[in-house]
Amino acid sequence: MIEIDAILFDVFGTLVDWRGSLIRDFTSWSVGRGLTVDWTGLVDAWRAAYVPSMNRVRNGERAWANLDTLHRESLQDIGHQFGLPATVHESDREYLVQGWHKLDPWPDSAAGLQCLKTRYIIAPLSNGNMSLLVDLARHAGFPWDAVFSAELFRHYKPDPETYLGAAEFLGLPPERVLMAAAHNGDLRAARKFGLRTAFIARPHEYGPAQTHDLAPQADWDFVASTVENLATQLGLPA
Amino acid sequence: MIEIDAILFDVFGTLVDWRGSLIRDFTSWSVGRGLTVDWTGLVDAWRAAYVPSMNRVRNGERAWANLDTLHRESLQDIGHQFGLPATVHESDREYLVQGWHKLDPWPDSAAGLQCLKTRYIIAPLSNGNMSLLVDLARHAGFPWDAVFSAELFRHYKPDPETYLGAAEFLGLPPERVLMAAAHNGDLRAARKFGLRTAFIARPHEYGPAQTHDLAPQADWDFVASTVENLATQLGLPA
Repeated sequence: MIEIDAILFDVFGTLVDWRGSLIRDFTSWSVGRGLTVDWTGLVDAWRAAYVPSMNRVRNGERAWANLDTLHRESLQDIGHQFGLPATVHESDREYLVQGWHKLDPWPDSAAGLQCLKTRYIIAPLSNGNMSLLVDLARHAGFPWDAVFSAELFRHYKPDPETYLGAAEFLGLPPERVLMAAAHNGDLRAARKFGLRTAFIARPHEYGPAQTHDLAPQADWDFVASTVENLATQLGLPA
Repeated sequence: MIEIDAILFDVFGTLVDWRGSLIRDFTSWSVGRGLTVDWTGLVDAWRAAYVPSMNRVRNGERAWANLDTLHRESLQDIGHQFGLPATVHESDREYLVQGWHKLDPWPDSAAGLQCLKTRYIIAPLSNGNMSLLVDLARHAGFPWDAVFSAELFRHYKPDPETYLGAAEFLGLPPERVLMAAAHNGDLRAARKFGLRTAFIARPHEYGPAQTHDLAPQADWDFVASTVENLATQLGLPA
C-alpha cells in the first residue's frame, strides 16, 4: 500500500500536446504572412534541440538560462532549415517562442487534475520556466496548488535538485511524493531519488511515428492510460 | 492609467485572519487537555516575535531558516509566559505550529481572488514557507496561479530579492506588477523597487485595539476596503 500526499506532474507531453498545438497554431498564424515554412519539420527539430540545449546547462558548459531563452536560441539555429527566413521580424520570432506558453491539454488532463486535487497536493515539476508554466496553467485550466519549475532550482530535470527540491518545499519526505510522467527517463530519476512513480502513456506525443516511451520500461508504482485513470487507480471517484 | 498584468498578495493579515483563527483553534483544541493557557496573550506575543526573528535572518545574524522553524523556536521562547508548560508533548507543540497552516480567510478574500484571476495573474508574495502557503490556499480556497514564498528566494520581505524575484519569475517588469497588502511597510518596499501598490484596510487584524496600519500612510496607487473592492476598482464586475 503506497501512501502519498502530493503528486508532481511532468507537463510537456504528459499533460499538454505540444506537437499538435504548435503545428496547428503556427500553420494557422502563418496564413497570409508570406511565410512558406515546414512547420511540422520545424516543431520536431525544435523539440529535438531541447535536450542537448539543456544538457549544456546541466553539464556546466554554460551558465543558467531558462527554457524561453533556450527555445529562442535553438529556433535561431534550426529555423532556416525549414524555410523560416533569418530576416523574420523579431516580433514574429517571439510569437513562435511564446507558442510554448499556450499549448492545449490532452482531453483528460484538466478534469483528472481537478479530481486528484480533492485529495492530493498537485503541482507541476517541469523544465518550463515559471512564466511559461503559469501561462500554460491559465490557458489549459490546470488547478495547481503550487508551481515547481526548474527555474526555481536553477537545475533541469533529471538533476536531483529538482525532485528533492520540490519535495523539500512541500515539507514531505520523497516517498510521500508521486512523480507522474509520460517518460520513463523522468521516472527513473524520480525513483532513484526516492519518489514514487506513475507512468501515464502518451503514445502520440511525438506524432503517429513515435518509437519511444510507448510503454512502461520498469515496474513503476502506477501505470495509467490518462490522468483520470490515475485518479481512479488512487481510489477517487470517476 | 495604471496597466498591470499580475497582482501579488501579502497573506497574513491581508487575506487571512491569523489572530482570530489561532485563538479560536487553540481555545477549542485545548478543552479537556488539562492546559490552562492564555491563548490570546500567547498568540499576540507569538506574532510580536515574528519580525525580530526574521530580522536575525535578514541581517545575517543567523543562516536561512523558514517560517515554520522561526515559529517553532519563538513558541519555545514565549510559551511558558502564558501558561504553556515547557514539558508539553512534542506533538502538541507541533499542533500549535501547524495552526499557522490552516488560518481562516477574511470573508471577501476567496471570492475577490477568484474575480481578479479572470483578468490577472494572482500569486501570494509572503514570508510564509511554501508548504504553509500551499496548505493555507487549500484550506481557504485561494485559486493561485503560482506561489511565491520568501523560501524560494531565501530572503524575507522587505528585502528586494522577494519583490524583484517574483516579478522576474513572472517575466514582467516591476511596474506591471501590483503588490496588495494591509501593511504600509510592505507597500513602501514594493514601491521602492518599482512595483505598483494597493492598500487593503484590515483594521482588526491585530484585534480590537489595533493602533497601526489602520489607514494608508502614502498615496498608494489603490486604496481598497476588501479584495472584492480592489477588483471593482480595477473595473471587474462585482
